[in-house]
Amino acid sequence: MSELIATYLLHDEKYPEKKAEDIALGLTVGSWTNLPEIEQSQLRKHKGRVVSIEGLPSEKEDQSLIRIAYPTINFSNDLPAILTTVFGKLSLDGKIKLVDLQFDVGLKRLFPGPRFGITGLRETLNVYDRPLLMSIFKGVLGKDLTFLAEQLRKQALGGVDLVKDDEILFENELTPFEKRITLGKQVLQEVQDQTGHRTIYAVNLTGRTSGLKDKAKRAAEVGADLLLFNVFAYGLDVLQDLREDNEIGLPLMAHPAVSGAYTSSPDYGMSNSLLLGKLLRYAGADLSLFPSPYGTVALDKTSALSIARELTEDDLFKKSFPVPSAGIHPGLVPLLIRDFGIDSVINAGGGVHGHPDGARGGCKAFRQAIETNLKGKLLVEGAEENPELKKALKLWGNAEVTA
Amino acid sequence: MSELIATYLLHDEKYPEKKAEDIALGLTVGSWTNLPEIEQSQLRKHKGRVVSIEGLPSEKEDQSLIRIAYPTINFSNDLPAILTTVFGKLSLDGKIKLVDLQFDVGLKRLFPGPRFGITGLRETLNVYDRPLLMSIFKGVLGKDLTFLAEQLRKQALGGVDLVKDDEILFENELTPFEKRITLGKQVLQEVQDQTGHRTIYAVNLTGRTSGLKDKAKRAAEVGADLLLFNVFAYGLDVLQDLREDNEIGLPLMAHPAVSGAYTSSPDYGMSNSLLLGKLLRYAGADLSLFPSPYGTVALDKTSALSIARELTEDDLFKKSFPVPSAGIHPGLVPLLIRDFGIDSVINAGGGVHGHPDGARGGCKAFRQAIETNLKGKLLVEGAEENPELKKALKLWGNAEVTA
Repeated sequence: MSELIATYLLHDEKYPEKKAEDIALGLTVGSWTNLPEIEQSQLRKHKGRVVSIEGLPSEKEDQSLIRIAYPTINFSNDLPAILTTVFGKLSLDGKIKLVDLQFDVGLKRLFPGPRFGITGLRETLNVYDRPLLMSIFKGVLGKDLTFLAEQLRKQALGGVDLVKDDEILFENELTPFEKRITLGKQVLQEVQDQTGHRTIYAVNLTGRTSGLKDKAKRAAEVGADLLLFNVFAYGLDVLQDLREDNEIGLPLMAHPAVSGAYTSSPDYGMSNSLLLGKLLRYAGADLSLFPSPYGTVALDKTSALSIARELTEDDLFKKSFPVPSAGIHPGLVPLLIRDFGIDSVINAGGGVHGHPDGARGGCKAFRQAIETNLKGKLLVEGAEENPELKKALKLWGNAEVTA
Repeated sequence: MSELIATYLLHDEKYPEKKAEDIALGLTVGSWTNLPEIEQSQLRKHKGRVVSIEGLPSEKEDQSLIRIAYPTINFSNDLPAILTTVFGKLSLDGKIKLVDLQFDVGLKRLFPGPRFGITGLRETLNVYDRPLLMSIFKGVLGKDLTFLAEQLRKQALGGVDLVKDDEILFENELTPFEKRITLGKQVLQEVQDQTGHRTIYAVNLTGRTSGLKDKAKRAAEVGADLLLFNVFAYGLDVLQDLREDNEIGLPLMAHPAVSGAYTSSPDYGMSNSLLLGKLLRYAGADLSLFPSPYGTVALDKTSALSIARELTEDDLFKKSFPVPSAGIHPGLVPLLIRDFGIDSVINAGGGVHGHPDGARGGCKAFRQAIETNLKGKLLVEGAEENPELKKALKLWGNAEVTA
């Protein structure tokens, strides 16, 4: 029998065994022991099952982990049905957090995973042996296309691989969606003709849900490289719809906006690894942004690493790029590579634009930091040959020294 | 200048004034004091503004309420853009909860509100002077259409106004969506011909997001009365899409499944009144279910009442029916009417099906309890003339006595 196994963290639950039984029945057949034999035999294939109950170490003695198996025959093969089954009513039922979902192979095959993934994006960019580098437009509200083009050019000239829109840039008269794509394409082609380096641009796909697919198709037609998407302001299934539409066929970058409303509490909601890791990958995100463990908007390191693991461990699906973000500067590059490996994207906003030489210098400093680290040298050594890196370390510090 | 004002609850924030300023700038123009005069004048209309900072009473001295105004020019007029602006990155930034959003009239006018609302549904049902009564199918997984038809008939014969699908009933071979609608319609027409009482049936609209509108249109074509929708497993904007499509044109009943992942924490996420009250109403839900303050899956009374207030207070929009649910039995009817008034729906599952005389008796007991209470009598008095009510009070107790 095909099953989906959900793992929950319970707090302050005196009788986790009883709670687990209540969930296994309450979210499937409703009741059991009082059913006539004939009805039991008829309903057996729909009945939930307690897989395990585990106490946590003594410092967390009020907590327990329970695992419940739900027959997949109970729901249709879509994330809304799955979430409603395993955490619908239950999300409202006291201190309980959904920490993992274990899909069996049959169920997994019904989800698409990333269209491009790490391998596909590396082929697009022709970069195989280092983390990718991404920078973010800064201060774009109220600015026009000329401003954006200039900022894009500077970042690309610094050798960045991807530039992404600010997630709060929506449809607006000054910098309309299609014009951003076509002008961005032109600027990036000019830089590539000049330097040989290719940069791609993630444009923010926004607006009403019913219009997204047409807008994404139009983006593909006018030559967009990839789409940034505030998936948690919409829904995971909307991301999957975008992924599965072959007329769109673009890589998808998932932004974590609004996800903290689900994941931040230790007692309620869902885990980061499930939401920003596993489910984003299954639904088809090629890249997943999340708070790095180093910056100001910080995630604890265990959570950040668990997201990256879900995005990149061996599975039926292509791998998605982890993008640990927020508060990143060149002095953190050795930590990022140590913790997230080369199959990750180093992503910076302030750490690019705040560089004394501007965005171009900021991007260069990052590329220099990456190159230095991968050569097995210390950043202080790299800084001797690279003035941009030297200035960056002076301004923001060098985590390699203090780590 | 048109503004959207967001209210946040901060915990453990030593410098709420600084935090508020950081939010007002960080989520709009990025920086301010270091900008040249000319850029300030160019960006002034995009700049966020701290409206107020309020300490909370001494027992909550580590908490404060801050209000930030965001110029509406910064975002497109859709809920994903609004949520990304006011609680995108910010949802990931420490102990902060979004408790309210105050739309100005101009912004409100861009949202639809309920198509039918309380008035429209009362006209459909021709019931004006009492709370509506709803019951829920029970134990439907693995059961066939004959079972459903029989259960529906019993509930309708008991005088219930609405019957809703279980929210975990998805597309399945035994009881397919369209067949549930057509058979349900036939059963309910038969009961109406027999008794004169009209019951309507809320069928669960499920499946992939991209297919929902077509499925809903098909439901309308084959005669569905109204649609149940697990909006929080999809997205608020998907509900709004369903509301705005005139080819669908059916009342929408929002189920709170998965919403607890957003609302349950006192420190993080969003408030119940905003999510299950205000935003559901703006987006177009005609009815909103939420945990009652009395049952096993309970919401505190202040939260439950705040949801109902948002659904029913005077506004540009039609009013939505509050449906306080879970753990409801006839002995709670006086409390429900006292707390939620007659413009509410009394909704029961176990309190209907667990009645000694079955679902028909359970529904009758509820109708008797409502009638008794509205006549100004005590339930114990009503029980003298009504054997079904008497049995219900004996089985589940009478909150009127203990309240």
